[in-house]
Amino acid sequence: MPTYTPPLRDMQFVMHEVLHVTDEFKAMPRHAEVDVDTINAVLEEGSKFAVDVIFPLNISGDEEGCVLDKTTHEVTTPNGFKQAFKQYAEGGWPALACDPEYGGQGLPIVVNQCFYEMLNSANQAWTMYPGLTHGAYEALHAHGTEAQKKTYLPKLTSGEWTGTMCLTEPHCGTDLGLLRTKAEPQADGSYKITGNKIFISAGEHDLVSNIVHLVLARLPDAPQGSKGISLFIVPKFSVKADGSLGERNGVYCGGLEHKMGIHGNATAQIVLDGAIGTMVGQPNKGLQAMFVMMNAARIGVGMQSLGLTEVAYQNALAYAKDRIQGRSLTGPKDKTKPADSIIHHPDVRKMLLTAKAYAEGGRALSLYCAMLIDRELHHPDAKVRKDAEEMVALLTPIVKAFITDNGHIATNACMQVFGGHGFIKEWGMEQFVRDNRINMIYEGTNTIQSLDLLGRKVLGNNGATLKKFGKLVGALVEEEGVNEKMAEFINPLAYLGDQMTKFTTELGFKGFQNPDEVGAAAVDYLRVAGHLVFGYFWARMAQVALREIANGNTDPFYQAKVQTARFYFAKLFPETATLMRTARAGSAALMNTDAALA
Amino acid sequence: MPTYTPPLRDMQFVMHEVLHVTDEFKAMPRHAEVDVDTINAVLEEGSKFAVDVIFPLNISGDEEGCVLDKTTHEVTTPNGFKQAFKQYAEGGWPALACDPEYGGQGLPIVVNQCFYEMLNSANQAWTMYPGLTHGAYEALHAHGTEAQKKTYLPKLTSGEWTGTMCLTEPHCGTDLGLLRTKAEPQADGSYKITGNKIFISAGEHDLVSNIVHLVLARLPDAPQGSKGISLFIVPKFSVKADGSLGERNGVYCGGLEHKMGIHGNATAQIVLDGAIGTMVGQPNKGLQAMFVMMNAARIGVGMQSLGLTEVAYQNALAYAKDRIQGRSLTGPKDKTKPADSIIHHPDVRKMLLTAKAYAEGGRALSLYCAMLIDRELHHPDAKVRKDAEEMVALLTPIVKAFITDNGHIATNACMQVFGGHGFIKEWGMEQFVRDNRINMIYEGTNTIQSLDLLGRKVLGNNGATLKKFGKLVGALVEEEGVNEKMAEFINPLAYLGDQMTKFTTELGFKGFQNPDEVGAAAVDYLRVAGHLVFGYFWARMAQVALREIANGNTDPFYQAKVQTARFYFAKLFPETATLMRTARAGSAALMNTDAALA
Repeated sequence: MPTYTPPLRDMQFVMHEVLHVTDEFKAMPRHAEVDVDTINAVLEEGSKFAVDVIFPLNISGDEEGCVLDKTTHEVTTPNGFKQAFKQYAEGGWPALACDPEYGGQGLPIVVNQCFYEMLNSANQAWTMYPGLTHGAYEALHAHGTEAQKKTYLPKLTSGEWTGTMCLTEPHCGTDLGLLRTKAEPQADGSYKITGNKIFISAGEHDLVSNIVHLVLARLPDAPQGSKGISLFIVPKFSVKADGSLGERNGVYCGGLEHKMGIHGNATAQIVLDGAIGTMVGQPNKGLQAMFVMMNAARIGVGMQSLGLTEVAYQNALAYAKDRIQGRSLTGPKDKTKPADSIIHHPDVRKMLLTAKAYAEGGRALSLYCAMLIDRELHHPDAKVRKDAEEMVALLTPIVKAFITDNGHIATNACMQVFGGHGFIKEWGMEQFVRDNRINMIYEGTNTIQSLDLLGRKVLGNNGATLKKFGKLVGALVEEEGVNEKMAEFINPLAYLGDQMTKFTTELGFKGFQNPDEVGAAAVDYLRVAGHLVFGYFWARMAQVALREIANGNTDPFYQAKVQTARFYFAKLFPETATLMRTARAGSAALMNTDAALA
Repeated sequence: MPTYTPPLRDMQFVMHEVLHVTDEFKAMPRHAEVDVDTINAVLEEGSKFAVDVIFPLNISGDEEGCVLDKTTHEVTTPNGFKQAFKQYAEGGWPALACDPEYGGQGLPIVVNQCFYEMLNSANQAWTMYPGLTHGAYEALHAHGTEAQKKTYLPKLTSGEWTGTMCLTEPHCGTDLGLLRTKAEPQADGSYKITGNKIFISAGEHDLVSNIVHLVLARLPDAPQGSKGISLFIVPKFSVKADGSLGERNGVYCGGLEHKMGIHGNATAQIVLDGAIGTMVGQPNKGLQAMFVMMNAARIGVGMQSLGLTEVAYQNALAYAKDRIQGRSLTGPKDKTKPADSIIHHPDVRKMLLTAKAYAEGGRALSLYCAMLIDRELHHPDAKVRKDAEEMVALLTPIVKAFITDNGHIATNACMQVFGGHGFIKEWGMEQFVRDNRINMIYEGTNTIQSLDLLGRKVLGNNGATLKKFGKLVGALVEEEGVNEKMAEFINPLAYLGDQMTKFTTELGFKGFQNPDEVGAAAVDYLRVAGHLVFGYFWARMAQVALREIANGNTDPFYQAKVQTARFYFAKLFPETATLMRTARAGSAALMNTDAALA
């Protein structure tokens, strides 16, 4: 059975020693009083919930899965899930980063992000129930009427109800412009909604008394394509004026998917059979409203893979220390035993360090993003808010795709450390691989993320936001350019930073002539950009650690940080050499292949 | 539900147009009469068995798994598996490449290899039952006494019995020197064997009347470590002098593993409780005898991933043509539909072509290996046999590790083409990923393969065999160096060939000073060597195709081959740029990490 120890020290390092989040918060009226001790205390408490309550349900949830009663259309979640959600609500956890106006605790997104990393390490399938709820909360908070907010937000904040996003239909996922679900206006201002949705995570379950579905559908007179989509709230039970539950609405679960992983989460086919809903935001502007939710969800998916990478790493490390097998290549390391532990083998270390470097790099990036979102929401200066928003937009596809692809690499590497035992369910390693696999697909496949990054976020504004990130890199290079101890980190970073500008311009030029050039290069480009960003944060983390060491700090934590940074630049970062080459190889080798793909 | 069409045309291309196997066979007395028509007819028949009999059992076998009756210790395989094995035996398929002296048909290994690729595409879990049997056959054929051979080989050849390899114990897999199972000599010359084995594929089942376990164990006076291991035959039922079955032996299934994939194959814990066995080969020389079996098994594992890569590719291609979603980046391709099929997207093509290029490259390499094994076994010239044996030894870890790692990349890419549907069991794609995952682990993890390649097969003989392969590359470069149409294939291949010598020498020198340098570089080195080999075969396949095209052959098959070769060199082969860089980055970044891995 796997174990899990929340990496509180590492979260604190990123928040307090690298990003100095509380200094940032001082500029924000909402968070000016949030201090280091508060953050640490909340996360300490949160870590207990993750470890004690939901981690023990991870393997059993995978084994049991969710069960649909086809007569009642009700879904039973795995044993213990409901009780855990009750504890979650009673502990006030759903409210952590929610608006105090609707019962929230109003803590920074940064804190919530750390909390979610731990929840995902402990149990991704369970965490999707509150996770989706958070997305529904965001969309309603941004686009709901005052009445809608008063009706729904306090219940989502308290954990009495949960939420979903109902987008996908059998014939459309990526291309929502094709969706067919219909919404007919009723005399009372409500809508009757009819259609079939699939792949609805947390779509039906027994955790709470009501489920708030946010549904995309078309009005009768809607234009075709993505400009004719509106957003609706469709509660499982109608809500009376006093907030109590009324009639069962015409929205029910028609089936559950049998999946590779996340068995504990109900992936529902949702049938809307004249369900009563109310519109959120403007007619035909539903996709924009839903994008609020989707952007939050994309960062959320990155956090899922970050969580899995961390827990997989911890278990592989423990196994590698414990398992004795063969002798070290340089001679026996423990003569009292018949063999050495496998951690003495270089490639075992490589697999472990790959996971560690990706976990810690991913944590730095995602907490940086979370801090930017706090700025975007609460900084008093509109220019600062706008800059933060743009940077979050740039980094979101990287968080989603780079961290989930790295999660795939890392969970597979950690499983491999276990040899044959990695393939056996009892050890829990193969579940991390299976659960992670969906993260590369949902909320926009990683290919879609790469097109969003290169096409929209980079070339779409002539690289303006990318240049802003480049300035951060340039400043660090400037600051540390003459520091010999930093050279091994700064030199490759500076080199890639320089290359990136040329590389981007080149792709922009080729893409202008032939859009397939963008499509052919985008996935490689996203990984190069990911390494630029991770390289930047690894250099900053090494900088902080080297300064501590220079100041006489003997905490091995800092030595560890430098060693991991060194590994990252020596063994992972050089992937960019191939990626730039294959991106530059162009689209012809892909597109002139009609005979091959006949 | 997935479909599968055996790639007979492509197998014929490799055998008859690239390798010209029947010309090779003319030199071998055993195979001199084997002609193109015979080979094609056998494979045509074999393809029907794969498609009609075992492919329909692939998904159901995954769902049902194997069931152990804890009272009787008997295992029930999934519905249909037993009947399929009966048809397999009745069709004479187990005998295909077996020795006519023991009832075999004596066909070349090349033919058997093609047949096994198809079986593995159709159902890897089922195919492991005959596959393991083949390994047991090989070990007995090479090391058994005449009496042992007469007792066991005809039954394994006829498919009346199956075989296993009992190596692994709970505390030892990679390091068999640690094994503890004991064999006590009895007065009648037999041995009483006691111990616990785990991860025994096809270890117990209901397909046949007897199971022939090949068991590694220690004699009472055996030296410690790997030099004190002997090999024994331990049949489930003792065999009487007349060949009929006698008493139930003290070898039984103590449990079945719950695994990530290959659910249809029984992975058994085997308890030996004073089981009666007879020794195979010499005392304390069991590991060498078992290595005959293991080398065959390693190539067999490569064939498993080749099979899965092919079937995953076929289904992803069909889905990509069928699924409409969004518009092509260069404008609508099918205006009569609301969206274009996703095959018009460059990255979808990249995922498909990755699988296709790895499948066809893997097929060329593995059939080349099979042909070398035919040479090794049946060529009249001892020097030719010896050369072939050495080349097979060099290529075996590449077949095992490179093809299975590529299978991981390819099955995941093909699953990704399906978007959310890829994660759903009904589509069958995620099963290919799960089934393939064990191939990177068993029969020696891919890290072990890389150490075998770089440490033993390359540096161990000062690169002598590698140089022989280099000569093949050099001859091709010489032959096509001035052919402009071949330049895009020959130039990168020639460049890597040159680099490889320098790279290998450099690693040899560093490894001599510090063995961890070999361990740190080996995995990267194996992938570089893999690309050298694949690059060689892709260039040869392009050469054949371009000649046909130049001669006016308009069969689009040849155009397809050139396009796929072009894709391979543009998008996959450049991985070597990063691999050589990370291999050269050395061991310090891995080994000086005690603080990081504390």
